[in-house]
Amino acid sequence: MTVYSAPVKDMMFLFEHLKDNKNYNEIEKYKEVTSDLVKDILEEAAKINEEMLLPLAKAGDENPCVYENGVVRTPPGYKEAYSKFIEDGWVSLTCDPKYGGQGMPKTVSAFFDEMLSSSSLSFKLYSELSIGAYNCILSHATEEIKNTYLPKIVEGKWSGTMCLTEPQCGTDLGLIKTKAIKNENGTYNISGQKIFITSGDHDLTENIIHLVLARTQDAPKGTKGISLFLVPKYEINDDGSIGPRNGVNTVSIESKMGIKGSPACVLSFDDAKGYMIGPENKGLNSMFTMMNLERIVVGIQGLGLSETAYQTALSYSKERKQGKSNNNSNGETDLIIKHADIRRSLLNMKSIIEGERSLSFWMAQQVDVSLSHSSEEVKKDASDIVGLMTPVIKSFFTDMGMEITNEAIQVFGGYGYTKDQGIEQLFRDNRITPIYEGTNSVQAIDFVFRKISQKKVFDNFMKYVETEIQDCSKVDKLNEHVKKISELKNILSDFTDWISPNGNTPKDDISASCNDYLRFFGYFCLSFIWLKTMRKSYENLENNKEFYEDKLNTGNYYFDKILPRAESHYKSAISGSKYTMSAKFN
Amino acid sequence: MTVYSAPVKDMMFLFEHLKDNKNYNEIEKYKEVTSDLVKDILEEAAKINEEMLLPLAKAGDENPCVYENGVVRTPPGYKEAYSKFIEDGWVSLTCDPKYGGQGMPKTVSAFFDEMLSSSSLSFKLYSELSIGAYNCILSHATEEIKNTYLPKIVEGKWSGTMCLTEPQCGTDLGLIKTKAIKNENGTYNISGQKIFITSGDHDLTENIIHLVLARTQDAPKGTKGISLFLVPKYEINDDGSIGPRNGVNTVSIESKMGIKGSPACVLSFDDAKGYMIGPENKGLNSMFTMMNLERIVVGIQGLGLSETAYQTALSYSKERKQGKSNNNSNGETDLIIKHADIRRSLLNMKSIIEGERSLSFWMAQQVDVSLSHSSEEVKKDASDIVGLMTPVIKSFFTDMGMEITNEAIQVFGGYGYTKDQGIEQLFRDNRITPIYEGTNSVQAIDFVFRKISQKKVFDNFMKYVETEIQDCSKVDKLNEHVKKISELKNILSDFTDWISPNGNTPKDDISASCNDYLRFFGYFCLSFIWLKTMRKSYENLENNKEFYEDKLNTGNYYFDKILPRAESHYKSAISGSKYTMSAKFN
Repeated sequence: MTVYSAPVKDMMFLFEHLKDNKNYNEIEKYKEVTSDLVKDILEEAAKINEEMLLPLAKAGDENPCVYENGVVRTPPGYKEAYSKFIEDGWVSLTCDPKYGGQGMPKTVSAFFDEMLSSSSLSFKLYSELSIGAYNCILSHATEEIKNTYLPKIVEGKWSGTMCLTEPQCGTDLGLIKTKAIKNENGTYNISGQKIFITSGDHDLTENIIHLVLARTQDAPKGTKGISLFLVPKYEINDDGSIGPRNGVNTVSIESKMGIKGSPACVLSFDDAKGYMIGPENKGLNSMFTMMNLERIVVGIQGLGLSETAYQTALSYSKERKQGKSNNNSNGETDLIIKHADIRRSLLNMKSIIEGERSLSFWMAQQVDVSLSHSSEEVKKDASDIVGLMTPVIKSFFTDMGMEITNEAIQVFGGYGYTKDQGIEQLFRDNRITPIYEGTNSVQAIDFVFRKISQKKVFDNFMKYVETEIQDCSKVDKLNEHVKKISELKNILSDFTDWISPNGNTPKDDISASCNDYLRFFGYFCLSFIWLKTMRKSYENLENNKEFYEDKLNTGNYYFDKILPRAESHYKSAISGSKYTMSAKFN
Repeated sequence: MTVYSAPVKDMMFLFEHLKDNKNYNEIEKYKEVTSDLVKDILEEAAKINEEMLLPLAKAGDENPCVYENGVVRTPPGYKEAYSKFIEDGWVSLTCDPKYGGQGMPKTVSAFFDEMLSSSSLSFKLYSELSIGAYNCILSHATEEIKNTYLPKIVEGKWSGTMCLTEPQCGTDLGLIKTKAIKNENGTYNISGQKIFITSGDHDLTENIIHLVLARTQDAPKGTKGISLFLVPKYEINDDGSIGPRNGVNTVSIESKMGIKGSPACVLSFDDAKGYMIGPENKGLNSMFTMMNLERIVVGIQGLGLSETAYQTALSYSKERKQGKSNNNSNGETDLIIKHADIRRSLLNMKSIIEGERSLSFWMAQQVDVSLSHSSEEVKKDASDIVGLMTPVIKSFFTDMGMEITNEAIQVFGGYGYTKDQGIEQLFRDNRITPIYEGTNSVQAIDFVFRKISQKKVFDNFMKYVETEIQDCSKVDKLNEHVKKISELKNILSDFTDWISPNGNTPKDDISASCNDYLRFFGYFCLSFIWLKTMRKSYENLENNKEFYEDKLNTGNYYFDKILPRAESHYKSAISGSKYTMSAKFN
């Protein structure tokens, strides 16, 4: 069985000491979100995750969702847990109090997202997509639709989905075929097939609200002719009660490698009644409100699964005895945690995980600013930073999730390959995260061609780095790291000049190197955030020596052992794409 | 479904043009193993793998081995395939003609091992362990035992196992508890429990020959008190026919992440009759005859699975249309193979796979020399090289197998995560290879502490590299690569000095860096063998331009895109283990 104890202490350290974003601290409504309140929430969240949700991971893997007679049934225990989950109001954590939500900031919900991912990703996905739908409806729908749908979604009685993919199009949404034919009353009839729809059907909620990309009649070709529609599984009567079944049917569910407690559905829309959300032909823009926040959460999924893998491997390494370590003094077999090589594995995991958690918290502040600051200009700047960092968080965290869950299996030796330990499940469950919500290569392409090409945004981010470097250069013990990150910053600058689509580098060279650039940038960001984390640790050292010394040790490890990886991506990238493009592949 | 067409052309290129080991060419009995003969064998082998064995992979995954009423049943189709397999004599490929074998060299069987791994690793394991048992018995058993057991094993009617692991000991075999009590007639009664026994029980053969590590009474503690025993599932009558059931029973089989068509058994030995193989208390030495060759074959498993992953991803990328590439001219959606980023993925795979195949062939020549050369001195030198390279082949190829099968999934996007494509199965099946036959960390430790510490052996290997560099420095077009590998050789030299257990580096620093050193060395070896492969390609260019130009393109890609990874491992390693060892892990 996997082991998981929510890292509340680390989260509270971040909440109390890394909240140094001036703009975030200006957000009026979050001033009452005090440390005490957050601690209470996280402790309650820890309890529900450790006790109720963690066992659902294994249950879902052993008894996957079942599709029978047109209906999807969730694994044993999911219904009961979901009832309790919504009864305690967990779905509503970040939602607007106007619709029944608790109005918590992302700085808090990011921690909760991590915990849910650590305990059961499959279970999490049901409410995660609901929040995605909530965000999209909130931003783009009419007041009438908001008032009809949002309270039920916030309550958790209705859930949501994102219906983008079709058999012929995943990455390339321009190929969407699903049709929307306008009715006289302003509604639309939606027809087409959607695949890989997470939570597309299940038995946890009374209704399921699909957000569907489709083309109206005479819409322009490609991505410029796509509109967004709200299509409920059951129509809603005028009094808000559940009406007749709409024309959405589940054709089948996928047999998958992992997250088996979450169904990936093939949905058939046959003249299903739908309501347009946002302006016609601007559906992709509206959907991306949902997608962007969702992509950050997928990154956090990678972090959450990594944490459980780390804790489970750590626990095993404190139980399993094998061989004698270099420092063995009593001639007895040692716990494997005494072996330098096992410690290396564990610290690889720990130093990446804690860095990611810091970065995720830093990012959450930016998200909150982008959504809730009083100044539009400040909001816009933060939103740009969020846009810049989204593909990095999504790709880097999920790729590292593969590395970390892989390394955790290895700590177990042969036992790691068996189902009993649960560790191999984390590896399989995490394998979806580099794929869905846009594959990591799509993220890398987005990062290079659409994000860093906005020089002002990139420079804005680098200002944060420069400020941190300046702050840290006053801390003697960080001198060496400041030197390292400064060197790396120069390489990043060269790399960015080289890869920028605004420069002279051939486009194929750029396309072939986006992944390397994103990976380089990911390691760089972690060094930036470790610098900040270490500075705060030195500042607070005397308050809790054990905690901060551990933090500093982990940060030092990151700089020594992980950061050297970055540069090879630069060297590989700038060699260009001559041989990449000339290969015949016969 | 996965796609696999055996790379006979590449294999024949290696057999015809990379067979430049003078000692290998002196082996008398292999002089009649001509290109024509090998081509015939490989073409027949290709047929049986592509047509009969490839479908068994999926069949075994969907219908894993079943344990019922004390008996293990193999997946549907395995029995019929196995009958045909042994009827055609495939088990006997490398075995001594004295016992009914075909006496083929490892240079040929390495190709066959790769093909089997590509088509169905689960199916392969049944005969693979038989060959392991064959090698061990051949080297260490008495004539009587050889005559009784080998012909049946060679024929494929009896299969073999290696019984090392017990619940309390995997890596640390010194902890073995299984007991061997001597009977008056010289046989032993073996009692104890063994776990993770591949092919420990099944219904493919009349008998199963277990090679079991156990302790005699009063044996010294630790690894110095372990002996090796042959324990048949059924005893053998004096006339060679199958006798009564021996005291070996299957307690259960593991539920595993992959290779589900191959059972990992828990075996209980209860006063089972056994025969000592080799000298008392020297069981580990005897077992390592089997283990070392087996470890090379596990490396080849990683290569074989990678090849299928590559071919399957390549095939998909020639069918799937999505988006427009940089070079799109007709405004239509492009095949994804047109995209630079997909080509990068495919070439990452291809350049590593073809490098590994060359290296594996180079290594197979050394193995043949070590086993069959007329000079004891030459044999010893080759054997040392084999010993040196074994942990590298095992670890590097299997780790790269994880990277390659992972990357192949990514090419498929969402489809890669479903069971339908078969690609996720390759990823799961390959996940055992970095674990079994000694985890890759154990290999790295062996490599550093026992192999490179023998300076003469290391220097012998480096002579091959130096000779190749000299040969290549005469080829203008290889100048740049020669320069790169020479630089890398200098770093390798520094790295080796730093990590050598004979030097002054603290032992924990060394232990924490073995993996980095092995990985560095792996990339280095591939650059060495690519140099050789490219030189031969230039020499033969005019004979088959299409083939050799492709080869050269792939080699160039390796130097540009993959090799830059090596250096980061050096930088990470030499930072030492201060933070690794001081972490508290509370």
